[in-house]
Formats: sequence, C-alpha cells, structure tokens
Amino acid sequence: MKLYDYPPAPNPRRVRIFLAEKGIEVPTEAVDLRQGAQLSEAFRRINPQCVVPYLVLDDGTGISESIAICRYFEALQPDPPLFGKTPLEQALVEMWSRRAEFEGLLAVADALRNSAPAFKNRALPGHDDYEQIPALVERGQRRTKRFFDVLEERLAHSTFLAGDFFSVADITAFVTVDFAGWIKLTLPETHINARRWYETVRARPSASA
Amino acid sequence: MKLYDYPPAPNPRRVRIFLAEKGIEVPTEAVDLRQGAQLSEAFRRINPQCVVPYLVLDDGTGISESIAICRYFEALQPDPPLFGKTPLEQALVEMWSRRAEFEGLLAVADALRNSAPAFKNRALPGHDDYEQIPALVERGQRRTKRFFDVLEERLAHSTFLAGDFFSVADITAFVTVDFAGWIKLTLPETHINARRWYETVRARPSASA
Repeated sequence: MKLYDYPPAPNPRRVRIFLAEKGIEVPTEAVDLRQGAQLSEAFRRINPQCVVPYLVLDDGTGISESIAICRYFEALQPDPPLFGKTPLEQALVEMWSRRAEFEGLLAVADALRNSAPAFKNRALPGHDDYEQIPALVERGQRRTKRFFDVLEERLAHSTFLAGDFFSVADITAFVTVDFAGWIKLTLPETHINARRWYETVRARPSASA
Repeated sequence: MKLYDYPPAPNPRRVRIFLAEKGIEVPTEAVDLRQGAQLSEAFRRINPQCVVPYLVLDDGTGISESIAICRYFEALQPDPPLFGKTPLEQALVEMWSRRAEFEGLLAVADALRNSAPAFKNRALPGHDDYEQIPALVERGQRRTKRFFDVLEERLAHSTFLAGDFFSVADITAFVTVDFAGWIKLTLPETHINARRWYETVRARPSASA
C-alpha cells in the first residue's frame, strides 16, 4: 500500500500521528500541494478527487478522508484503541472528533483559505475551484476562538477530550491548535486546562510524526 | 434514555432512519427548531450546545452529533451492521459518510441557511449566532449539483455508496437528496443510477421514520 501525503498540511499530519501511535509504518509519497501537484494530470489519475491524504491498497482500492484511513488501520490493528472501546467511549470519541473538525479544523481552514493569496480560487480543497469569500475569514477566526473556549471548558473536567484516555479526537484537536498558528491564533494564557492538555499531547513521541 | 428530536430537520431524520433499520425504539421529545426552542433556557440546561439530535442516557451523559449517536447504537447492537464489517468496508463507509456530509449535506445547509429569512443570524447551527453570507448561497447550490454528479458516478458502479451493502452512508446521502428539495434542487433525469439508488432506499420501511 501507499499513503499519499504532504508533510506541512494538517490532514495528512492527523494520519501520520495516528499511525505513529499504532506503531504502523506505511510507505508514503509526497504530493506538493503548494505547487498544486494534487491537480496535476498524473495525480488526477490516482485520485480524481484531488485530495490528500489518500491511501491506495495493493489491489488498487483508494481511500480518501483522513478519518476513513485511520479507521481502516484501527480495524486492522485494534491496539492501542484510538476510537474508544465501550459503546459510550466510541460515541464520545466520534462526538469529540466531529466537534474538533467542524468547530475547529474547518473554522481555521475557512479563515486561512479565504484570505491567503496562495489559496486564490481554492477556498475549498478538491477537484473544483471555488472563489475566496472574504466574510468567511472573520467568521473562521471567531469560530476558532470559540473552539478554544470549548476545549478549555471540556478539558477543565476531563484529561483528554473523550474521557481519561487518549483518542483520535485529541489528534484532530491538537493538529487544529497548531494549524491555528497559520492564522496567528494561539490558545490564550487564561486557558490553563487546554494548555495543560496541549503540552501533554505534544510530549507524546507521535506529535513529531 | 431520551432522544431530543425535531421531525422535519435532516439530522434527526438520519438518526431515526438508523434506529428504524436496527429495529430499536427510543423515547423521543421534539424540540421545535422553527420556534427557536433549542435556544431556550430550558433546553440550554439540557444541551448547552443547543443542537438536536441529542441523546441523553439514563445516567445523564449527553451525546450530540448524529453519527456519534448512531455509533453508540451500532456498538450496543451490531446487527444489522450499518458501519461495515471488514476493515475495508468500515473504511469505505466512513469515507462515503463523510463525502455525503461535507460535499452534500453541508452544501445544501449552506445554500438554505444563508438565504432563508427563517435563518437570519442563524447561518450555522449551535449556541452562537452567525450572520448569513450571501456568497454561500450560490456556492452551496453549485456544490449540491456537483454532489449529485458524484452520486451518479459512484452509483453507476456500485449498488450502494460503500459497496453492495446498505450503510449509514446511504442514509446520509438519501436524507441529503430530500433536503436538497428545500433549495429546489432534485436529482436530474439524466442521473439514472442515482435515481435507481434513491428509489431503492426510499422503498425501505425505514425511509418514513
């Protein structure tokens, strides 16, 4: 199998951290998103959706969507569990994964992609071009700050997002906090619980994956 | 347990169809989103996020996010499986679920919530108010049509979205096609494979849940 990757981007990083937590090594190939390589004829033939990360299995089957790739490896190798064990744990991991994505990762992406010149006509990832919408910049910044508050509220009562165990929800939220640096937003000094959690996650060997 | 519900809205419908497929009955209580009941003091005390569907367990634990609620019931009662069985099936269900949400459901929601007077200052669901952004209306319509093309392309080669088995990905996509009717978009006559799939899903008893 092969994982199409791009080291600086947040979504491929989620998958790399996940694989590092599992101790799984997968051959990777970088697709230079900064140069638009995901839109090249060569990569379109591999993934017509024109997104990374993208996992291609030995039989040619392709899997897009970071969390779909993570689930594939979770099912292949359940230990250590990163999607929860009990029904309630599984539900809370799913809930916090989604909240981290919708309220955090997508908010930062909106603020960045609708303002940075490098994303002109690329306000959304994928095959089609979409113009930047300036109103999404301020909204994305506001939502990112609100997400930091959500993290602080939750982590004042919980070691990790889904409970007292590390999960894929923490990976997404951690990557989101770093990604927010691209729009010059950081966890406020006042958010002591979120900062304690951030440092805990950053200290894991997987964080440098 | 109790499921906070609102029959006309697409997300609670996804959960109701899922439960009907499983043959699980859960007591429900309607929260009248049209009247803004999700923002009332009474409902804020139940779910400070101010969204439905919302599942409250007997011990008081709350679960938001439609797919998190579905996963809870999948783990409690695995049959019939709606998130896939093998690792590859699980990955493809996750991938198509997410594509149906990001490329379909969220696109329709953007077009609707940024135009309809009923959603003034409510461009996004949840606790906080967000102004409507007119540029998201046309983008949402364009993305919805593109999603119909994605469905047609996929369903020309596959009985259901994730393969030859019905899954939660089909539930999301089916609900999205009906939801698109709210912005006056329907599967084009030319999309014969998507229409065949739509009629197959609509014929299931769960579709009326």
